[in-house]
Amino acid sequence: MPSARDPIHLDYNATTPILPEVLEAMLPYLGEHFGNPSSGHAYGRRAREAVEAARARVAALIGASAEEIVFTSGGTESNNLAIRGAAAARPERRHLVTSAIEHPATDAPCRFLERQGWEVTRVGVEGSGRIRLDQAARAVRETTALVTFIHASNETGVLQPVAELAGAARAVGAMVHTDAAQSVGKVPADVDALGVDLLSIAGHKLYAPKGVGALYVRRGTRIVALLLGAEQEHALRPGTENVASIVGLGTACEFAARTVDEERQRVSALRDSLWRQLRAGLPGILLNGDERERLPNTLNVRLPGVRGQAVLDACPEVAASTGSACHAGSEVPSSVLTAMGLGEEEALGALRLSLGRGTTAEAVDREAAALIGAWSRVARQGGGCPAVAREGRS
Amino acid sequence: MPSARDPIHLDYNATTPILPEVLEAMLPYLGEHFGNPSSGHAYGRRAREAVEAARARVAALIGASAEEIVFTSGGTESNNLAIRGAAAARPERRHLVTSAIEHPATDAPCRFLERQGWEVTRVGVEGSGRIRLDQAARAVRETTALVTFIHASNETGVLQPVAELAGAARAVGAMVHTDAAQSVGKVPADVDALGVDLLSIAGHKLYAPKGVGALYVRRGTRIVALLLGAEQEHALRPGTENVASIVGLGTACEFAARTVDEERQRVSALRDSLWRQLRAGLPGILLNGDERERLPNTLNVRLPGVRGQAVLDACPEVAASTGSACHAGSEVPSSVLTAMGLGEEEALGALRLSLGRGTTAEAVDREAAALIGAWSRVARQGGGCPAVAREGRS
Repeated sequence: MPSARDPIHLDYNATTPILPEVLEAMLPYLGEHFGNPSSGHAYGRRAREAVEAARARVAALIGASAEEIVFTSGGTESNNLAIRGAAAARPERRHLVTSAIEHPATDAPCRFLERQGWEVTRVGVEGSGRIRLDQAARAVRETTALVTFIHASNETGVLQPVAELAGAARAVGAMVHTDAAQSVGKVPADVDALGVDLLSIAGHKLYAPKGVGALYVRRGTRIVALLLGAEQEHALRPGTENVASIVGLGTACEFAARTVDEERQRVSALRDSLWRQLRAGLPGILLNGDERERLPNTLNVRLPGVRGQAVLDACPEVAASTGSACHAGSEVPSSVLTAMGLGEEEALGALRLSLGRGTTAEAVDREAAALIGAWSRVARQGGGCPAVAREGRS
Repeated sequence: MPSARDPIHLDYNATTPILPEVLEAMLPYLGEHFGNPSSGHAYGRRAREAVEAARARVAALIGASAEEIVFTSGGTESNNLAIRGAAAARPERRHLVTSAIEHPATDAPCRFLERQGWEVTRVGVEGSGRIRLDQAARAVRETTALVTFIHASNETGVLQPVAELAGAARAVGAMVHTDAAQSVGKVPADVDALGVDLLSIAGHKLYAPKGVGALYVRRGTRIVALLLGAEQEHALRPGTENVASIVGLGTACEFAARTVDEERQRVSALRDSLWRQLRAGLPGILLNGDERERLPNTLNVRLPGVRGQAVLDACPEVAASTGSACHAGSEVPSSVLTAMGLGEEEALGALRLSLGRGTTAEAVDREAAALIGAWSRVARQGGGCPAVAREGRS
């Protein structure tokens, strides 16, 4: 648990703490059960059993079969493997469809393929932050190898209608991938309901460790490995398995499956309470993104004329994120928000407040008061923002 | 620590347990210090500081500067990034030089490039397991982009004269990579003494966790990222950093730097004691690989007419490896040993015994007795080997 001097953590979309029960499950595999799952002896067999048990738990959370799960080093690798692996498996098709609001771990592989001569269609979004169904349907053609849409925006939390977005893709035999790094564990995510062939999971977004993730690969879907070496993970992901972290991911998925409905209610009530308090204290504050179709934990807001980074700088009691990235000391507005039609100045006003399992009602009240104080002070001082320190948007 | 019923672990080249001091250093980052290093707030800054401190420790072990270290998910990824990253940075050159005894994590990326139209020259080895200097010198040409040689064989432990092997490569401006997964922490490995531009480290081979590794990239050496996404790790390796495991790797490297000379003496004395006892009890037993230029912990042996796997099956008291891989239920002889000139039957006789920090003199005596008993029983029964369960050779 954080110390009393630590700010209140309102940045669960950036990363989550490991749950105590997850760490407890991992510890034996960081200790005496240290075998390499590829070894035939007792140490190896015990590690292999743990990896396979975790695989079944990850699969269960998303309605998959164990053999459809490939463990990776995290969400970024899962997206790379899905997108570049699908493209490599379909070299005769040379077209991809994605959206304007993808995470860099999707956007960068798509741009790589573009440099290799692939055509990439980027579907726009509504003002609500929802990817446009009409554009998605029109974008797909016979040469489309893959469509890839984020399941829930890491910045606004807006949930995307992946099944509907992918409808046209399935009709032409294109593969369907979704980056579900932010949604898995927060809302139900079922691979059949979503109609996807490939789905990315990031451990550290759902209370498992950093450095582990998974890719769901639907039975019969052929992709090509990205990392090359020995035969681990159905020859799709070589390298000695990260046993302890895989056990952690399995435990976190099992915990999420058991508690997702209850936690969803709890955290959305807290998030809505925070929003009510901010609105009461900050006339003119606006919500970025659809109010209903949204992750239960995410609140992305702006106060016209005030920079989000300036609010964070003025509010050391709260650890949150702006959503804007900072390159070489100057702020760059969030491309997710500008894709929704916000102007650059509007986008620079954004603050992403993301709640989680450690968030309490009492903390929300304190956070609201601290943020209202900071926002008011900054607004009185003109709302401006000097060059700021590096800020993530993961 | 293993329980009393566990076999004696003689498979440290497959994987090592995490040192208690390494786990202790990791635990805060698996707990309260859970920030994302890209976040600008206090949680993020603390994680960033830990990652950078670990980077300096990894660098110090190999005589590098901190900014020359890129953290990865392990040895396989480091090799992939080095080899494919170097090839992508030198598209005008279309030739690679490697050896016949590389790990699959080097061999597979080389084969991938071969399928892409690159020419790959594989330098052979002496009977001693040492890569042939004369062939290496002749293999290099003006179009050589990269030479990649393993520093110490994972199977025989034979140390390679990387600096000499790479001499001709440097003369034509080719990059030099070494897979030092097995050697770092066991023997001194200095990037300047080795004359390398790229060097791969695997955490779980030196008492750090599985799922973390590093690639040394000499200042001024340009390689192209393999995984694509955000800007982490000098934009060479995107994805949220695996903070706790990186801290573990840094701690393990600091520990290795402090203790490598002493441990090298200790473990080689134990290894030599094991070899003396086996020779006394098993007339005709042979050493695979050079006796002097070898990792201090590795003993690769064979008894003519006896299958290594049959010995392991008959000796549940010892957890070791054959070095041979098993595909679809039938044994495949080690390509490292056949490259040294062993026949297939000879290679199937091999047993790799690899010692480590947990190995004691008392355990060596017990191991020797157990192995002598098993080898003798198997030899009396004809030495044969039925189809066996999957056996790793990582």
